[in-house]
Amino acid sequence: MKISVGVSNRHIHLTKESLEILFGSNYNLEILKGLKQPGQFASSSLVTIKGPKGQIENVRILGPLREYNQVEVSKTDCYTLGINPPVRNSGDLKGSSPITIIGPKGELHLEEGCIIATRHIHISYRDLEKLHLEKVSKVKIKIDGEKGAILDNVYLKPSENGCLELHLDTDDANAHLVKQDDLVEVIYE
Amino acid sequence: MKISVGVSNRHIHLTKESLEILFGSNYNLEILKGLKQPGQFASSSLVTIKGPKGQIENVRILGPLREYNQVEVSKTDCYTLGINPPVRNSGDLKGSSPITIIGPKGELHLEEGCIIATRHIHISYRDLEKLHLEKVSKVKIKIDGEKGAILDNVYLKPSENGCLELHLDTDDANAHLVKQDDLVEVIYE
Repeated sequence: MKISVGVSNRHIHLTKESLEILFGSNYNLEILKGLKQPGQFASSSLVTIKGPKGQIENVRILGPLREYNQVEVSKTDCYTLGINPPVRNSGDLKGSSPITIIGPKGELHLEEGCIIATRHIHISYRDLEKLHLEKVSKVKIKIDGEKGAILDNVYLKPSENGCLELHLDTDDANAHLVKQDDLVEVIYE
Repeated sequence: MKISVGVSNRHIHLTKESLEILFGSNYNLEILKGLKQPGQFASSSLVTIKGPKGQIENVRILGPLREYNQVEVSKTDCYTLGINPPVRNSGDLKGSSPITIIGPKGELHLEEGCIIATRHIHISYRDLEKLHLEKVSKVKIKIDGEKGAILDNVYLKPSENGCLELHLDTDDANAHLVKQDDLVEVIYE
Protein backbone atom coordinates (compact mmCIF):
# COMPACT_ATOMS: atom_id res chain seq x y z
CA MET A 1 0.00 0.00 0.00
CA LYS A 2 1.22 3.49 -0.88
CA ILE A 3 0.59 6.47 1.37
CA SER A 4 1.32 10.19 0.95
CA VAL A 5 3.83 12.04 3.10
CA GLY A 6 3.28 15.19 5.11
CA VAL A 7 6.56 16.80 6.19
CA SER A 8 6.32 18.47 9.63
CA ASN A 9 8.64 21.36 10.21
CA ARG A 10 9.19 22.41 13.84
CA HIS A 11 5.93 23.75 15.30
CA ILE A 12 3.99 24.48 18.48
CA HIS A 13 0.61 23.61 19.99
CA LEU A 14 -0.62 25.92 22.77
CA THR A 15 -3.35 26.30 25.35
CA LYS A 16 -5.50 29.44 25.35
CA GLU A 17 -3.69 30.66 28.50
CA SER A 18 -0.26 30.26 26.94
CA LEU A 19 -1.33 31.98 23.71
CA GLU A 20 -2.48 34.98 25.75
CA ILE A 21 0.81 35.13 27.71
CA LEU A 22 2.73 35.22 24.43
CA PHE A 23 0.45 37.44 22.33
CA GLY A 24 -1.69 39.38 24.82
CA SER A 25 -5.20 38.79 26.17
CA ASN A 26 -8.06 37.93 23.83
CA TYR A 27 -5.58 37.15 21.04
CA ASN A 28 -6.91 34.68 18.47
CA LEU A 29 -5.10 32.47 16.00
CA GLU A 30 -5.70 33.36 12.36
CA ILE A 31 -5.87 30.56 9.81
CA LEU A 32 -2.98 30.91 7.36
CA LYS A 33 -3.50 27.53 5.67
CA GLY A 34 -5.61 24.48 6.38
CA LEU A 35 -3.73 21.20 6.95
CA LYS A 36 -4.79 17.82 5.60
CA GLN A 37 -6.07 16.64 8.98
CA PRO A 38 -9.63 18.01 9.32
CA GLY A 39 -9.84 21.17 11.44
CA GLN A 40 -6.08 21.51 11.87
CA PHE A 41 -4.38 24.62 10.50
CA ALA A 42 -1.13 26.55 10.26
CA SER A 43 -1.70 29.92 11.91
CA SER A 44 -0.02 33.17 10.91
CA SER A 45 1.48 33.48 14.43
CA LEU A 46 5.21 32.96 14.92
CA VAL A 47 7.36 32.80 18.05
CA THR A 48 10.98 32.18 19.05
CA ILE A 49 11.97 29.03 20.94
CA LYS A 50 15.02 29.10 23.19
CA GLY A 51 17.16 26.44 24.83
CA PRO A 52 20.35 26.56 26.94
CA LYS A 53 22.58 26.80 23.84
CA GLY A 54 20.66 28.78 21.23
CA GLN A 55 17.36 29.89 19.83
CA ILE A 56 15.27 29.44 16.68
CA GLU A 57 13.06 32.22 15.34
CA ASN A 58 9.85 32.09 13.30
CA VAL A 59 8.46 28.87 14.74
CA ARG A 60 4.84 28.50 13.67
CA ILE A 61 1.90 27.90 16.01
CA LEU A 62 -0.60 25.35 14.74
CA GLY A 63 -4.29 25.54 15.56
CA PRO A 64 -6.76 24.95 16.98
CA LEU A 65 -5.70 25.52 20.59
CA ARG A 66 -5.23 22.41 22.74
CA GLU A 67 -5.41 21.37 26.37
CA TYR A 68 -1.60 21.22 26.59
CA ASN A 69 1.51 23.04 25.35
CA GLN A 70 3.76 21.05 23.03
CA VAL A 71 6.84 22.07 21.05
CA GLU A 72 7.85 19.62 18.28
CA VAL A 73 11.41 19.90 16.97
CA SER A 74 13.85 17.85 14.92
CA LYS A 75 17.12 16.42 16.27
CA THR A 76 18.91 18.97 14.08
CA ASP A 77 17.02 21.74 15.93
CA CYS A 78 18.03 20.12 19.25
CA TYR A 79 21.73 20.68 18.50
CA THR A 80 21.00 24.37 17.85
CA LEU A 81 18.94 24.69 21.04
CA GLY A 82 21.16 22.52 23.26
CA ILE A 83 18.42 20.15 24.41
CA ASN A 84 17.89 16.38 24.33
CA PRO A 85 14.14 15.68 24.18
CA PRO A 86 12.64 12.18 23.97
CA VAL A 87 10.90 10.74 20.89
CA ARG A 88 7.21 10.78 21.83
CA ASN A 89 3.69 10.58 20.49
CA SER A 90 1.72 13.82 20.64
CA GLY A 91 0.40 14.57 24.14
CA ASP A 92 2.77 12.16 25.90
CA LEU A 93 4.77 14.88 27.61
CA LYS A 94 5.72 13.58 31.06
CA GLY A 95 9.48 14.03 31.48
CA SER A 96 9.89 15.72 28.09
CA SER A 97 12.36 18.62 27.71
CA PRO A 98 12.07 22.10 29.17
CA ILE A 99 11.95 24.95 26.64
CA THR A 100 11.30 28.69 26.57
CA ILE A 101 8.85 30.27 24.12
CA ILE A 102 9.18 33.99 23.36
CA GLY A 103 6.24 35.88 21.84
CA PRO A 104 5.77 39.56 20.99
CA LYS A 105 3.97 40.27 24.29
CA GLY A 106 5.51 37.82 26.73
CA GLU A 107 7.68 34.83 27.47
CA LEU A 108 6.74 31.36 28.69
CA HIS A 109 9.07 28.81 30.24
CA LEU A 110 7.79 25.24 30.06
CA GLU A 111 9.32 22.79 32.55
CA GLU A 112 8.34 20.06 30.12
CA GLY A 113 6.68 20.04 26.68
CA CYS A 114 9.39 19.72 24.04
CA ILE A 115 9.57 16.45 22.07
CA ILE A 116 10.82 14.92 18.86
CA ALA A 117 7.60 13.53 17.37
CA THR A 118 7.41 9.84 16.53
CA ARG A 119 6.98 8.88 12.90
CA HIS A 120 3.21 8.43 12.65
CA ILE A 121 0.30 7.81 10.31
CA HIS A 122 -3.04 9.57 10.63
CA ILE A 123 -5.83 7.18 9.68
CA SER A 124 -9.62 7.03 10.08
CA TYR A 125 -11.29 4.10 11.92
CA ARG A 126 -12.94 3.31 8.61
CA ASP A 127 -9.58 3.00 6.76
CA LEU A 128 -8.15 1.05 9.69
CA GLU A 129 -10.88 -1.56 9.19
CA LYS A 130 -10.65 -1.51 5.40
CA LEU A 131 -6.89 -2.18 5.59
CA HIS A 132 -7.26 -4.82 8.34
CA LEU A 133 -5.03 -2.81 10.67
CA GLU A 134 -7.34 -2.83 13.72
CA LYS A 135 -4.88 -4.84 15.79
CA VAL A 136 -1.71 -3.12 14.60
CA SER A 137 -0.08 -0.31 16.61
CA LYS A 138 2.85 0.37 14.32
CA VAL A 139 4.16 -0.40 10.84
CA LYS A 140 7.33 0.10 8.81
CA ILE A 141 7.72 2.44 5.82
CA LYS A 142 9.77 1.68 2.72
CA ILE A 143 11.30 4.66 0.91
CA ASP A 144 12.94 4.12 -2.47
CA GLY A 145 15.75 6.08 -4.09
CA GLU A 146 19.44 6.83 -3.75
CA LYS A 147 18.99 7.48 -0.01
CA GLY A 148 16.18 5.00 0.51
CA ALA A 149 15.50 3.09 3.73
CA ILE A 150 13.01 1.05 5.67
CA LEU A 151 11.87 3.09 8.66
CA ASP A 152 10.99 1.40 11.96
CA ASN A 153 8.45 2.42 14.58
CA VAL A 154 5.85 4.25 12.52
CA TYR A 155 2.84 4.56 14.83
CA LEU A 156 -0.78 4.44 13.69
CA LYS A 157 -2.90 7.30 15.04
CA PRO A 158 -6.51 6.37 14.32
CA SER A 159 -9.29 8.91 14.73
CA GLU A 160 -12.86 9.40 13.51
CA ASN A 161 -12.01 11.78 10.68
CA GLY A 162 -8.28 11.11 10.21
CA CYS A 163 -7.04 11.67 6.68
CA LEU A 164 -4.61 8.93 5.63
CA GLU A 165 -1.16 10.55 5.77
CA LEU A 166 2.34 9.71 7.02
CA HIS A 167 3.91 12.47 9.10
CA LEU A 168 7.71 12.68 9.04
CA ASP A 169 9.85 15.39 10.59
CA THR A 170 12.29 17.39 8.45
CA ASP A 171 15.25 15.21 9.50
CA ASP A 172 13.55 12.06 8.24
CA ALA A 173 12.31 13.80 5.09
CA ASN A 174 15.71 15.31 4.26
CA ALA A 175 17.78 12.21 5.13
CA HIS A 176 15.68 10.12 2.74
CA LEU A 177 15.10 12.83 0.12
CA VAL A 178 11.35 12.77 0.63
CA LYS A 179 9.11 15.78 -0.06
CA GLN A 180 5.58 16.79 0.88
CA ASP A 181 2.97 14.62 -0.94
CA ASP A 182 5.50 11.99 -2.09
CA LEU A 183 4.14 8.44 -2.03
CA VAL A 184 5.89 5.78 0.09
CA GLU A 185 5.09 2.16 0.87
CA VAL A 186 3.58 0.85 4.09
CA ILE A 187 4.98 -2.52 5.27
CA TYR A 188 2.91 -4.39 7.82
CA GLU A 189 5.08 -5.90 10.56
CA MET B 1 29.09 -7.22 11.98
CA LYS B 2 29.13 -3.92 13.86
CA ILE B 3 30.88 -0.84 12.53
CA SER B 4 31.50 2.60 14.03
CA VAL B 5 29.92 5.75 12.64
CA GLY B 6 31.65 8.94 11.59
CA VAL B 7 29.20 11.84 11.19
CA SER B 8 30.21 14.21 8.37
CA ASN B 9 29.09 17.79 8.76
CA ARG B 10 29.13 19.93 5.61
CA HIS B 11 32.74 20.41 4.43
CA ILE B 12 34.96 21.27 1.49
CA HIS B 13 37.91 19.75 -0.38
CA LEU B 14 40.01 22.17 -2.44
CA THR B 15 42.84 22.29 -4.96
CA LYS B 16 45.96 24.32 -4.17
CA GLU B 17 44.87 26.95 -6.74
CA SER B 18 41.43 27.36 -5.17
CA LEU B 19 42.87 27.60 -1.66
CA GLU B 20 45.11 30.45 -2.81
CA ILE B 21 42.21 32.30 -4.47
CA LEU B 22 40.24 32.13 -1.20
CA PHE B 23 43.06 32.71 1.32
CA GLY B 24 45.89 34.36 -0.62
CA SER B 25 49.02 33.01 -2.28
CA ASN B 26 51.25 30.55 -0.43
CA TYR B 27 48.53 29.93 2.15
CA ASN B 28 48.76 26.52 3.81
CA LEU B 29 46.15 24.50 5.65
CA GLU B 30 46.83 24.05 9.36
CA ILE B 31 45.85 20.74 10.98
CA LEU B 32 43.16 21.38 13.58
CA LYS B 33 42.36 17.71 14.21
CA GLY B 34 43.30 14.44 12.55
CA LEU B 35 40.42 12.37 11.18
CA LYS B 36 40.15 8.58 11.43
CA GLN B 37 41.09 8.04 7.79
CA PRO B 38 44.92 8.09 7.67
CA GLY B 39 46.35 11.44 6.54
CA GLN B 40 42.98 13.20 6.43
CA PHE B 41 42.42 16.18 8.72
CA ALA B 42 40.04 18.98 9.66
CA SER B 43 41.85 22.25 9.03
CA SER B 44 41.38 25.45 10.99
CA SER B 45 40.28 27.26 7.80
CA LEU B 46 36.63 28.24 7.39
CA VAL B 47 34.73 29.77 4.46
CA THR B 48 31.19 30.76 3.51
CA ILE B 49 29.25 28.86 0.86
CA LYS B 50 26.55 30.64 -1.10
CA GLY B 51 23.69 29.48 -3.31
CA PRO B 52 20.87 31.32 -5.12
CA LYS B 53 18.71 31.42 -1.99
CA GLY B 54 21.06 31.79 0.97
CA GLN B 55 24.47 31.21 2.47
CA ILE B 56 26.08 29.17 5.23
CA GLU B 57 29.06 30.48 7.18
CA ASN B 58 31.90 28.66 8.92
CA VAL B 59 32.14 25.70 6.56
CA ARG B 60 35.35 23.80 7.27
CA ILE B 61 38.00 22.90 4.71
CA LEU B 62 39.36 19.38 5.08
CA GLY B 63 42.93 18.49 4.15
CA PRO B 64 45.10 17.49 2.49
CA LEU B 65 44.52 19.40 -0.74
CA ARG B 66 43.08 17.42 -3.67
CA GLU B 67 43.08 17.46 -7.44
CA TYR B 68 39.50 18.72 -7.50
CA ASN B 69 37.15 21.09 -5.63
CA GLN B 70 34.22 19.45 -3.85
CA VAL B 71 31.59 20.87 -1.51
CA GLU B 72 29.63 18.26 0.48
CA VAL B 73 26.34 19.38 2.01
CA SER B 74 23.22 17.82 3.52
CA LYS B 75 19.75 18.09 2.00
CA THR B 76 18.85 20.37 4.91
CA ASP B 77 21.68 22.70 3.83
CA CYS B 78 20.36 22.57 0.26
CA TYR B 79 17.05 24.15 1.32
CA THR B 80 19.01 27.01 2.96
CA LEU B 81 21.21 27.47 -0.11
CA GLY B 82 18.49 26.94 -2.73
CA ILE B 83 20.29 24.20 -4.64
CA ASN B 84 19.45 20.64 -5.68
CA PRO B 85 22.69 18.64 -5.94
CA PRO B 86 22.84 14.94 -6.82
CA VAL B 87 23.80 12.16 -4.38
CA ARG B 88 27.32 11.17 -5.45
CA ASN B 89 30.48 9.36 -4.43
CA SER B 90 33.45 11.60 -3.74
CA GLY B 91 35.15 12.81 -6.94
CA ASP B 92 32.16 12.00 -9.19
CA LEU B 93 31.34 15.62 -9.94
CA LYS B 94 30.18 15.78 -13.56
CA GLY B 95 26.86 17.63 -13.65
CA SER B 96 26.89 18.31 -9.89
CA SER B 97 25.59 21.65 -8.57
CA PRO B 98 27.16 25.06 -8.99
CA ILE B 99 28.14 26.83 -5.76
CA THR B 100 30.06 29.92 -4.66
CA ILE B 101 32.77 29.77 -1.98
CA ILE B 102 33.74 32.99 -0.19
CA GLY B 103 37.07 33.19 1.67
CA PRO B 104 38.77 36.08 3.50
CA LYS B 105 40.86 37.01 0.44
CA GLY B 106 38.69 36.05 -2.52
CA GLU B 107 35.65 34.39 -3.96
CA LEU B 108 35.37 31.31 -6.15
CA HIS B 109 32.39 30.29 -8.25
CA LEU B 110 32.31 26.60 -9.18
CA GLU B 111 30.15 25.69 -12.17
CA GLU B 112 29.96 22.20 -10.67
CA GLY B 113 31.33 20.63 -7.47
CA CYS B 114 28.54 20.54 -4.89
CA ILE B 115 27.12 17.12 -3.94
CA ILE B 116 25.24 15.28 -1.25
CA ALA B 117 27.68 12.48 -0.39
CA THR B 118 26.52 8.89 -0.65
CA ARG B 119 26.38 6.84 2.52
CA HIS B 120 29.74 5.03 2.43
CA ILE B 121 32.11 2.79 4.34
CA HIS B 122 35.87 3.28 4.35
CA ILE B 123 37.59 -0.11 4.43
CA SER B 124 41.10 -1.46 3.80
CA TYR B 125 41.72 -4.12 1.12
CA ARG B 126 42.79 -6.36 4.00
CA ASP B 127 39.46 -5.98 5.84
CA LEU B 128 37.59 -6.39 2.57
CA GLU B 129 39.19 -9.80 2.15
CA LYS B 130 38.80 -10.77 5.79
CA LEU B 131 35.07 -10.00 5.62
CA HIS B 132 34.64 -11.69 2.22
CA LEU B 133 33.38 -8.43 0.68
CA GLU B 134 35.69 -8.39 -2.37
CA LYS B 135 32.80 -8.75 -4.80
CA VAL B 136 30.37 -6.44 -2.98
CA SER B 137 29.95 -2.79 -4.03
CA LYS B 138 27.32 -1.79 -1.49
CA VAL B 139 25.63 -3.02 1.70
CA LYS B 140 22.75 -2.03 3.96
CA ILE B 141 23.05 -0.65 7.49
CA LYS B 142 20.70 -1.50 10.36
CA ILE B 143 20.22 1.17 13.01
CA ASP B 144 18.32 0.29 16.19
CA GLY B 145 16.30 2.57 18.44
CA GLU B 146 13.13 4.64 18.53
CA LYS B 147 13.98 6.12 15.10
CA GLY B 148 15.77 3.08 13.75
CA ALA B 149 15.90 2.05 10.10
CA ILE B 150 17.60 -0.09 7.53
CA LEU B 151 19.55 2.20 5.18
CA ASP B 152 19.96 1.31 1.50
CA ASN B 153 22.82 2.08 -0.86
CA VAL B 154 25.79 2.20 1.51
CA TYR B 155 28.84 2.09 -0.78
CA LEU B 156 32.11 0.36 0.09
CA LYS B 157 35.18 2.56 -0.50
CA PRO B 158 38.17 0.26 -0.27
CA SER B 159 41.70 1.67 -0.09
CA GLU B 160 45.14 0.49 1.02
CA ASN B 161 45.03 2.10 4.46
CA GLY B 162 41.29 2.68 4.92
CA CYS B 163 40.14 2.62 8.53
CA LEU B 164 36.84 0.73 8.88
CA GLU B 165 34.20 3.43 9.41
CA LEU B 166 30.68 4.27 8.14
CA HIS B 167 30.31 7.88 7.03
CA LEU B 168 26.83 9.38 7.34
CA ASP B 169 25.88 13.00 6.76
CA THR B 170 24.19 15.02 9.49
CA ASP B 171 20.70 14.42 8.03
CA ASP B 172 21.12 10.65 8.24
CA ALA B 173 22.72 10.87 11.69
CA ASN B 174 20.03 13.17 13.09
CA ALA B 175 17.06 11.39 11.48
CA HIS B 176 18.15 8.09 13.06
CA LEU B 177 19.50 9.57 16.31
CA VAL B 178 23.02 8.33 15.60
CA LYS B 179 26.12 10.03 17.02
CA GLN B 180 29.84 9.95 16.21
CA ASP B 181 31.42 6.59 17.20
CA ASP B 182 28.07 4.81 17.69
CA LEU B 183 28.09 1.19 16.54
CA VAL B 184 25.63 0.03 13.85
CA GLU B 185 25.15 -3.24 12.02
CA VAL B 186 26.25 -4.03 8.47
CA ILE B 187 23.83 -6.19 6.45
CA TYR B 188 25.24 -7.88 3.35
CA GLU B 189 22.84 -7.66 0.45
